Amino acid sequence: MAKIDTPPGFEDFLPEELNARNYLFETWRKIAMRYGFVEYETPIIEFTDLYRKKSGDEIVSELFSFTDRGKRDLALRPEVTPSLARLASQNQRNYSKPLKWFEIGSCFRAESPQRGRRREFIQFNNDIVGESSPAADAELIAMLIDVMREFGFTSDDVKIRLSDRKAWDIFLAGRELPTDALPKFLSALDKLEKDPEGTEKKLGELGIDVEEVRAFIANPTAAAELFNPITDSLAGRGLADFVQVDLSIVRGLAYYTGAVFELFSLKGKHRAIAGGGRYDQLLALMSNGKVDLPAVGYAMGNVVILDLIRETAEPLARLEEYLTVKTPADIFVIVADEAERAAALSVVQKLRDADISTDFPLTPAKIDKQFKMAEKLGTKFAVIIGSEFPEISIKNLTTREETKTTSDNLIEALRQLLDAPDSQNLLA
Amino acid sequence: MAKIDTPPGFEDFLPEELNARNYLFETWRKIAMRYGFVEYETPIIEFTDLYRKKSGDEIVSELFSFTDRGKRDLALRPEVTPSLARLASQNQRNYSKPLKWFEIGSCFRAESPQRGRRREFIQFNNDIVGESSPAADAELIAMLIDVMREFGFTSDDVKIRLSDRKAWDIFLAGRELPTDALPKFLSALDKLEKDPEGTEKKLGELGIDVEEVRAFIANPTAAAELFNPITDSLAGRGLADFVQVDLSIVRGLAYYTGAVFELFSLKGKHRAIAGGGRYDQLLALMSNGKVDLPAVGYAMGNVVILDLIRETAEPLARLEEYLTVKTPADIFVIVADEAERAAALSVVQKLRDADISTDFPLTPAKIDKQFKMAEKLGTKFAVIIGSEFPEISIKNLTTREETKTTSDNLIEALRQLLDAPDSQNLLA
Repeated sequence: MAKIDTPPGFEDFLPEELNARNYLFETWRKIAMRYGFVEYETPIIEFTDLYRKKSGDEIVSELFSFTDRGKRDLALRPEVTPSLARLASQNQRNYSKPLKWFEIGSCFRAESPQRGRRREFIQFNNDIVGESSPAADAELIAMLIDVMREFGFTSDDVKIRLSDRKAWDIFLAGRELPTDALPKFLSALDKLEKDPEGTEKKLGELGIDVEEVRAFIANPTAAAELFNPITDSLAGRGLADFVQVDLSIVRGLAYYTGAVFELFSLKGKHRAIAGGGRYDQLLALMSNGKVDLPAVGYAMGNVVILDLIRETAEPLARLEEYLTVKTPADIFVIVADEAERAAALSVVQKLRDADISTDFPLTPAKIDKQFKMAEKLGTKFAVIIGSEFPEISIKNLTTREETKTTSDNLIEALRQLLDAPDSQNLLA
Repeated sequence: MAKIDTPPGFEDFLPEELNARNYLFETWRKIAMRYGFVEYETPIIEFTDLYRKKSGDEIVSELFSFTDRGKRDLALRPEVTPSLARLASQNQRNYSKPLKWFEIGSCFRAESPQRGRRREFIQFNNDIVGESSPAADAELIAMLIDVMREFGFTSDDVKIRLSDRKAWDIFLAGRELPTDALPKFLSALDKLEKDPEGTEKKLGELGIDVEEVRAFIANPTAAAELFNPITDSLAGRGLADFVQVDLSIVRGLAYYTGAVFELFSLKGKHRAIAGGGRYDQLLALMSNGKVDLPAVGYAMGNVVILDLIRETAEPLARLEEYLTVKTPADIFVIVADEAERAAALSVVQKLRDADISTDFPLTPAKIDKQFKMAEKLGTKFAVIIGSEFPEISIKNLTTREETKTTSDNLIEALRQLLDAPDSQNLLA
């Protein structure tokens, strides 16, 4: 059988790549929890009908779907919002409102593999359920901003472009459009930047002058009451610089009902880093009308944000500091005399029992080679167990300084050495 | 469309269940890293051929598999070992040996749903690659023991039963069995406890007396040299009480080549909590002979261990302490005067910027109701912003004690109050 690689669009995470992934996870989780969000998770496989119900039959062609032995029509989740709507509507009565819930996990899309688009990707999902006030939109947007600040981005690097579906209701009011014209209008508007001529034509077919649209975008004062509560709240938090009202933001998904927003890099090469908005009717739809709760949410994927971190100085510095660790082990125990291997094993266990991460050579090796192993791994200290045991030497592998101690005092001695850069901890 | 639930065998994690899952993840990760293991991850979807290559055509019926648009035959992973063998053989030259690698992620089996068996489950996978010495087996078993100790189990609760495929080579030596008899023998042996009569019959067909088998199990001194290096290493670490040699342990998987082990509860109701062994030929098989590295590994699932934790006093106490947290927020900011909402927002942001997890009422509410919200969430302190701002009151929601401070001194005052139970931290 031929060599078997990962399928196209699916990728391994080697340890250094996994560290970068975990850095994203830890930052996401830290900021979500700082905002009082709690974590949940839903299955990777759902009934295909869950996605059909939210998005119609067209969605099925974008799914990895299959039939199980019980003839059930199942699919790998392409997003988490339908699952959240199910979970929240089934369980909301057990939690005080609003729910502030987040999730981190893999999603899948069955598109043909292409550069920069993965078929398995990870999404960070955040939703506030049960609060219709724009204060919830502001809280969620503030959280997104603080995620970016924690990564090291400033308002010179990234901006949130904020719009509202209802602003275009105001624009269209009194224009006597057919009732089904709004989706066509929004779809045309979505292409305004990329295809100005095509957009002008499509708007013309609806009897709308593209210049009027441009004027409304340039001066959206008529829609100010939609945005002011959000931007005021962000200004109160000192985060106003990160947000600009931009009515050209539409977002394709039909289920949004109010505010919509996307996070962009000001360098501009990238697709949106994150996007979301208000979807006040989805829970009612998914629960067949039983639970009618408003909701607002956003999602951020792992691919674009990591590319952007790697291209931006301060965020890259924060990531790299995290990636320099090649081993979690702080200590490498050197067995200088094989006659003392049992003693060395007892020391290894003593260190690990004290929650000091420790590695050691599993088999006999010359002392020089053992030091090389320690250096290759990048441990901070070597603890040398030889014929003089229970006397023990500790060697700082950076400064080459050597300290003598005994088996009984080893833990305390190591704690002091490990904590030394942060002198406050010496008091603890 | 009818109400859509999770498919059978797939489960949601509500926030409190997710906390329990994260407790497993954090404990697993902590102990693996304490042993110097580094984390990796592989895709959830692989070529079906990867599993065929390791386990033969029969495995396919146990997989969720499907054909993608590019006519590729893909499957959801039922385990991670084949992916690890691929990843390690492709990349081993960039890492010092032995590799000590771990992974945590979802696996899937297409069996019919039944009670206590999930079709999506999470496995914790640990492998040492590139070291043939039994010292690696001992290191891995010690790590498994320390995972259980960290959960709060003792050697009165759980035991590792250790066997070795080679012990049965010794037993069978000189018996002139046909060359293909070993798999039949091991398969019969595997049922010795559950089906003594059937086993006796099957062994008889191979010309083997079940009493000789029982005698060899009762007194495995002939195979002592296989186990002594492992049990000596564990004794050196003070962990010998957790292990007993038990040659009746076979483990079904054909790919094991040496030591095999399973972790059991002494209460006995449960299936194995974890299992593993040495598989010295798998990397060569998966790399078509290019990389011939020995390996030893084990896996632990999320379902049995969590059931066992919930049934055992000390482990349950440690889990429950972790689950009492209903919100990550330590602080609830009370807006006592709506005229001061902007000030309250600035305080909320200041607290969050100081990495103090904070929640607050998104919309105006009576003060009584706001205190009730804080109590329902279970935050430790309320920070009250009213007309006297920048003077601020802090209320301990457990003791009802109230402290006065000012906006400028708030962070320091809160840090002291939050750290108060652990008086040493007051010095930091």
